[in-house]
Amino acid sequence: MKGHKIMIQFTINKNAFLSAMRIAKQAIGSKIAIPVLSKLKIQVTSEGIHFTASNGQISIEKLLPANDKDAGMLIDSEGAILLEANFFDSIVAQLPDITFTFEEIENYQVKLSSGKSEITLKGQQPELYPMIQQITAKPSTKIAVGELKELFNETAFAVSTQESRPILTGVNIQLIDHQNLQAVATDSHRLSQRRIKLESFGEDFQVVVPNRAINSFRSVFSNDEDTISVFLNATQILFKNSTINFYSRLVEGNYPDTDRLIPDPSLYSLNLILDVADFLHAMNRAKLLTAGLQGGTVKLSVHDDKLMLTVNTPEVGSSFEELTMLEKSGQDIEISFNPQFLIDALRVLKEPKVKISFISNVRPFTLVPKDDSENFIQLITPVRTN
Amino acid sequence: MKGHKIMIQFTINKNAFLSAMRIAKQAIGSKIAIPVLSKLKIQVTSEGIHFTASNGQISIEKLLPANDKDAGMLIDSEGAILLEANFFDSIVAQLPDITFTFEEIENYQVKLSSGKSEITLKGQQPELYPMIQQITAKPSTKIAVGELKELFNETAFAVSTQESRPILTGVNIQLIDHQNLQAVATDSHRLSQRRIKLESFGEDFQVVVPNRAINSFRSVFSNDEDTISVFLNATQILFKNSTINFYSRLVEGNYPDTDRLIPDPSLYSLNLILDVADFLHAMNRAKLLTAGLQGGTVKLSVHDDKLMLTVNTPEVGSSFEELTMLEKSGQDIEISFNPQFLIDALRVLKEPKVKISFISNVRPFTLVPKDDSENFIQLITPVRTN
Repeated sequence: MKGHKIMIQFTINKNAFLSAMRIAKQAIGSKIAIPVLSKLKIQVTSEGIHFTASNGQISIEKLLPANDKDAGMLIDSEGAILLEANFFDSIVAQLPDITFTFEEIENYQVKLSSGKSEITLKGQQPELYPMIQQITAKPSTKIAVGELKELFNETAFAVSTQESRPILTGVNIQLIDHQNLQAVATDSHRLSQRRIKLESFGEDFQVVVPNRAINSFRSVFSNDEDTISVFLNATQILFKNSTINFYSRLVEGNYPDTDRLIPDPSLYSLNLILDVADFLHAMNRAKLLTAGLQGGTVKLSVHDDKLMLTVNTPEVGSSFEELTMLEKSGQDIEISFNPQFLIDALRVLKEPKVKISFISNVRPFTLVPKDDSENFIQLITPVRTN
Repeated sequence: MKGHKIMIQFTINKNAFLSAMRIAKQAIGSKIAIPVLSKLKIQVTSEGIHFTASNGQISIEKLLPANDKDAGMLIDSEGAILLEANFFDSIVAQLPDITFTFEEIENYQVKLSSGKSEITLKGQQPELYPMIQQITAKPSTKIAVGELKELFNETAFAVSTQESRPILTGVNIQLIDHQNLQAVATDSHRLSQRRIKLESFGEDFQVVVPNRAINSFRSVFSNDEDTISVFLNATQILFKNSTINFYSRLVEGNYPDTDRLIPDPSLYSLNLILDVADFLHAMNRAKLLTAGLQGGTVKLSVHDDKLMLTVNTPEVGSSFEELTMLEKSGQDIEISFNPQFLIDALRVLKEPKVKISFISNVRPFTLVPKDDSENFIQLITPVRTN
């Protein structure tokens, strides 16, 4: 039997190989759940080279097609093998020539030849690698990578980092009325909800995607123009384009009903229009004065035509500054909050002006882009001070 | 008394202030020996603003002159105060306007005003800061910053990181015959010795400068064209230009006599000329195969007209490559060594070709630039293998 084992052999451009491999390798984090997951699976077929990597939660399959124009791939013999991912990457990166030959030899070893250099590495039999559970359903919807990244970017920062309520560590993603894709994240102190209208129709769904998968998604799918299909089953989501399958486990459990948290606009007692950049800079200064203090707050006071921001931290000092209000309608207020929440909220606003609406100094206030208040809303809970 | 205390007040360009302050601040490391050394001393005189910072071993005084053209300094009142260095830096960096006013108020507090922002910080009385011991001797010699950096760069990598022999953690610097500046560093496994001829004459000296001071020196003195004076006393060295005093404690003890380690050229049994870049790349590959292994070695074999490099690490794999010899004279050899030592040695060679000379496979071998063998020599001890 052993004598008949298929042994891989191919020659390829080093950089094309590395680029493709590193897309899959992103699934491997710094914490390795089980030893075999520090390995990369390389499978060579007539289609090309398939790279598979996983951390148990996220699995990525990347195909470098046999006809890829940058790869100049010459496959002499197909097969599959496991190699230590980071070590293999560092070795390939140091090969002297622009191409190299990858040749499997006896006992699951691999010989890499490049220029006058020859390196032999220990591998393992591919059967040791866990099966990636496939999703066979038809796609739920299609979406441009850039749109999905934007949706994630505008919400994922608000997820909880506390494992005490695991459901809040993910982003709640829903397809509503076949065409409206909505993402919500909250850590119970602040919330961000974004909705976009898709070009194509799909079947309604609701899933909670872990934040770790969202972070990986951004770097794995680098071409914002690309369109990907979204597939679902009971426990997994799959984002797929022509060469990448990106699987993530879903967060289990029921996401809280966040719609009831969004205030009715009739309740607002004060609406302000502020310049996003000015407000963000002021919050960055305020944050410095609260730095290192659990629960440090900034006080925002609106009196007549003046908006004042005050921080008072007896241990280190105090700050006071005025901020220009572009528009004001409603009653004066004094309200305190964590400046980091405002920094996070303002950073993801692409429009230059923000509308902030207050009910009272003990109720959450909202931020919406001045000229698109329908599709993007953020809530921040104030801190009660005495 | 309190009512008559002098209170600082000045207005200044933010970036000019930050640049000058950050030169002094480099003395403050991540480990704070005594609490007051996390502070920066700011002293305002008719000369300008003096910044002082120290980690107990290294002390830096930087003057931002009153007439500095970028600073646009307006001094209303002189004085001195201590401020928490990193916190103060981050606050100033976030000020909204390009200029700010620094005003000392009651109880050693400082009020910073910039644009519509006003920040009050707690400071401390300047008398709490330790005295920097001054050096009153006349300068020992003068040298261009670029030359001294080069001397440090070519030797300091070889210092010992082991505290068991503290004397080896510094670079041994000697002025010989009033004009030849020599630096030597060794960790007892490898050694680097560099000599340069100064333009000006000085009084002979011998001191051991700690590696930490050498690292700081490189970033504190950024202008390679600048000429600095070197001052010495029994325990300290001072590098000084028109606005910076850079003090370092010396390493105490007698530096070993390293001259006797340099082999007599008549002993060499083999001399090779190699391309530095090719050799360095090969060593980088060899190092990967020994990575993570204490005492991993590469074997260099010269047989007739072939030079071969071999690594065999049973746990992970093996590598084999040929390297072109540009010249060879002498007998064949097989010798093993730590590839990291070669990487460090080759990296600091600016010439494209290196001459390597061997006595036997158990004696240290030497590297010199092919066309400047007089002033720069490195020794590497081989590893005995069986």
